[in-house]
Amino acid sequence: MNLLYDEQLDGELPAVDREALIDDLKQALPELEVLHKREDLQPYECDGLSAYRTLPMLVVLPETLEQVQTLMKICNQRKVPVVARGAGTGLSGGALPLEKGVLLVMARFNRILEVNPEGRFARVQPGVRNLAISEAAAPHKLYYAPDPSSQIACSIGGNVAENAGGVHCLKYGLTVHNVMKVEIITVEGERMTLGADSLDAPGFDLLALFMGSEGMLGIVVEVTVKLLPAPQVAKVLMASFDDVGKAGQAVGDIISAGIIPGGLEMMDNLAIRAAEDFIHAGYPVDAEAILLCELDGVEADVHAECDRVKAVLEKSGATEISLAKDDEERKRFWAGRKNAFPAVGRISPDYYCMDGTIPRRELPGVLQGIADLSKEYGLRVANVFHAGDGNMHPLILFDANQEGELERAEALGGKILELCVAVGGSITGEHGVGREKINQMCSQFNDDELETFHAVKAAFDPDRLLNPGKNIPTLHRCAEFGAMHIHNGELPFPELERF
Amino acid sequence: MNLLYDEQLDGELPAVDREALIDDLKQALPELEVLHKREDLQPYECDGLSAYRTLPMLVVLPETLEQVQTLMKICNQRKVPVVARGAGTGLSGGALPLEKGVLLVMARFNRILEVNPEGRFARVQPGVRNLAISEAAAPHKLYYAPDPSSQIACSIGGNVAENAGGVHCLKYGLTVHNVMKVEIITVEGERMTLGADSLDAPGFDLLALFMGSEGMLGIVVEVTVKLLPAPQVAKVLMASFDDVGKAGQAVGDIISAGIIPGGLEMMDNLAIRAAEDFIHAGYPVDAEAILLCELDGVEADVHAECDRVKAVLEKSGATEISLAKDDEERKRFWAGRKNAFPAVGRISPDYYCMDGTIPRRELPGVLQGIADLSKEYGLRVANVFHAGDGNMHPLILFDANQEGELERAEALGGKILELCVAVGGSITGEHGVGREKINQMCSQFNDDELETFHAVKAAFDPDRLLNPGKNIPTLHRCAEFGAMHIHNGELPFPELERF
Repeated sequence: MNLLYDEQLDGELPAVDREALIDDLKQALPELEVLHKREDLQPYECDGLSAYRTLPMLVVLPETLEQVQTLMKICNQRKVPVVARGAGTGLSGGALPLEKGVLLVMARFNRILEVNPEGRFARVQPGVRNLAISEAAAPHKLYYAPDPSSQIACSIGGNVAENAGGVHCLKYGLTVHNVMKVEIITVEGERMTLGADSLDAPGFDLLALFMGSEGMLGIVVEVTVKLLPAPQVAKVLMASFDDVGKAGQAVGDIISAGIIPGGLEMMDNLAIRAAEDFIHAGYPVDAEAILLCELDGVEADVHAECDRVKAVLEKSGATEISLAKDDEERKRFWAGRKNAFPAVGRISPDYYCMDGTIPRRELPGVLQGIADLSKEYGLRVANVFHAGDGNMHPLILFDANQEGELERAEALGGKILELCVAVGGSITGEHGVGREKINQMCSQFNDDELETFHAVKAAFDPDRLLNPGKNIPTLHRCAEFGAMHIHNGELPFPELERF
Repeated sequence: MNLLYDEQLDGELPAVDREALIDDLKQALPELEVLHKREDLQPYECDGLSAYRTLPMLVVLPETLEQVQTLMKICNQRKVPVVARGAGTGLSGGALPLEKGVLLVMARFNRILEVNPEGRFARVQPGVRNLAISEAAAPHKLYYAPDPSSQIACSIGGNVAENAGGVHCLKYGLTVHNVMKVEIITVEGERMTLGADSLDAPGFDLLALFMGSEGMLGIVVEVTVKLLPAPQVAKVLMASFDDVGKAGQAVGDIISAGIIPGGLEMMDNLAIRAAEDFIHAGYPVDAEAILLCELDGVEADVHAECDRVKAVLEKSGATEISLAKDDEERKRFWAGRKNAFPAVGRISPDYYCMDGTIPRRELPGVLQGIADLSKEYGLRVANVFHAGDGNMHPLILFDANQEGELERAEALGGKILELCVAVGGSITGEHGVGREKINQMCSQFNDDELETFHAVKAAFDPDRLLNPGKNIPTLHRCAEFGAMHIHNGELPFPELERF
């Protein structure tokens, strides 16, 4: 499948003298590994969003900070665009290469420089895998909180670029809440430190600005992350519902009761059945929806909170509530959830994974809206998502071999994102904008807002050499895309009732 | 006293036709209250940092969003600088007016627009007092976490401008961690929304960038804050030490043990005696230092944590540990801390309150460094501060009527801030840069970093009309100030040992 792809951008970029650039690099950086043969470039033609593919002009694999500086100076001088790439697990095409640009692979920056238990931080290079940080901190009973599903493979530099989340970000926050400092190389090849070792830094908060900026403001060469104490115990409750809306309402009820679970996930019937068939997690296949609610902390506290959550769930109309009786059952409950995407892949030739965020209170209405749209477009949608923070991942099931289904899936996906924006949400939760959602940014933001983004971008990168064509669309592109800007709270679907 | 003040800035600003501006305002905004007589302007000549005073050219008190928009359009057209002001309780001169500028007082934007218990947020106008938000949320057992000492008077708009903290920010974060969305008016008079109702917003994180930007990027007209469930119980432990360094070390030990107290405050002997003499809080006047450690949460949890903190304190060498036996004693313990500044004011004709932040682990060494500097300069320094997050408030005691003491106090203050920067800290924790610390910014940041700040500022305000002369020094100013940039970890005091 090849969703939404367009060749527009590469065409807009200025011509680059590839051979002269290679000569410059060879002369200034004889030790730098540069890939330029077609067969060497092929492995880098896409990231985790495999629907989009472009062969990079060149791939470079630096090992030292000085190499990155020199590389940036040369590219800046020759006005060659640079796309930085971590582990390449991103789901929005943020690290998609350019035919007229250098792909800067940071995989060899893979050292853990310091684990400091007293200061509760770790200093790592950007190519270090997310999970490796927690593994290195484990002897001190500490861990790094953000846990994207790809954490075994994804790198911390990519997490910074996409402001990655995970199952536990409801309680422990996104990457932006768990990073203290980054060292970057600017487009001019200068070193710069954003953030500080102490709680707050004066001046503008450029650290937060950098989080989620998708490689458009600079190249990360070092990250200082916060480490948290590992929770003593974790318990998981599973609640069944005979109605999706009631489950959505229960999410709000739990939070309103003053409880912040470690994780609060929801699956609807289609997802439940697919996961159960695949994993045998012990899910109730007749339920219209289930909630998985993890509570973590110290023993006494978790025990008391379990009782409180149970009471809320009963009041919200749960038809059955069970507490995972031991750690083995707890892990089985999670295994079903974590494998829900591949499980859905078993029951449909193709699926399209969406990533929209909405205010929690809008869950019941938006779930109904998705159900209505699903009927209208004649395509099944499985819902499995981070309910606690309103981060939805509707999976649209389709068969690309059936004429028109791909186009209907795209159109339905677009409508779902517009619905998210209309209720005050956004077109992406944790996967980023990248290349995939760039047109949807035209729905999310108006021209004034996009112009401000461009002005901020220009403060770091006036010639737009860093990852051009991602994250922030040009006004020209939005005009061509023809999207009507949707104001928050303004419903684009007259046929749907206001929730 | 009149510390560090200089007239340089107003002299640099272009001339403004005051009468023409008044005419414009009268014509376009006949309802807008405009103050222009000297006696009406006088109450606005300073904020909480009363050492700096300037009479504003004009004061305006708008009541509607449309008035702010029109005002900004007129000022932008005439290129008149605008300084926004909340309650005027700021301690760094961030709302100091300009002789050639309009002071925009937001006090009449004082309505709480919405308290939403299910969504756990409140939507308020910028002139609403910090404490009023918690009062409005109290019926739902919710509260707004950041609690600067001035919370009874300071406004949320000012909190946003300075990214305010408070006693509880160790556990619950600064303003930036507790705000979801702001509505602003740009320098061109356009409305813009930063942030979102949902967890994360795509594009650059302009919301975080705006927090602490000291009125230099836009005018806040609405703030959506997060509300947290009020803790069930709170307990306070007081620990005495016969050595300041040991108390500093104990702070790190508590955090390393995986405990995040609601508040963790430290006072040294001079501060203890002054506070005890004033408040009779029951402090041990012979102790070289005390720590106050508040633990909050659910009953069972707090009980268990108290035991763990006690064990850590004993191991760290506390000579005495007492638990406030009831809520009355707990409040008395805090009353001593909260009145420590005025208490010190009783034992010295003048004092100069510093606000530097350091990595927690550097506390013992920096306290020793301050003691050494205190001897060298022949001035007493009382230490009373947010130890848990490394936010120090050394109070330099002096007598402005003794020749040379004021200058020595200034010089000592400068050295203390340089020491903070040298160990990886910063020149301000929660009070902001404003006018007061603008020269110290030249020590904190190098030219490249300052240029990036200016470029970001220009993205919002190309003509530098919003609060000019605060927060970010010009390179020209830094060159005149003659500060040597101090790299983190590079010690500016050869006479001090590396900690």
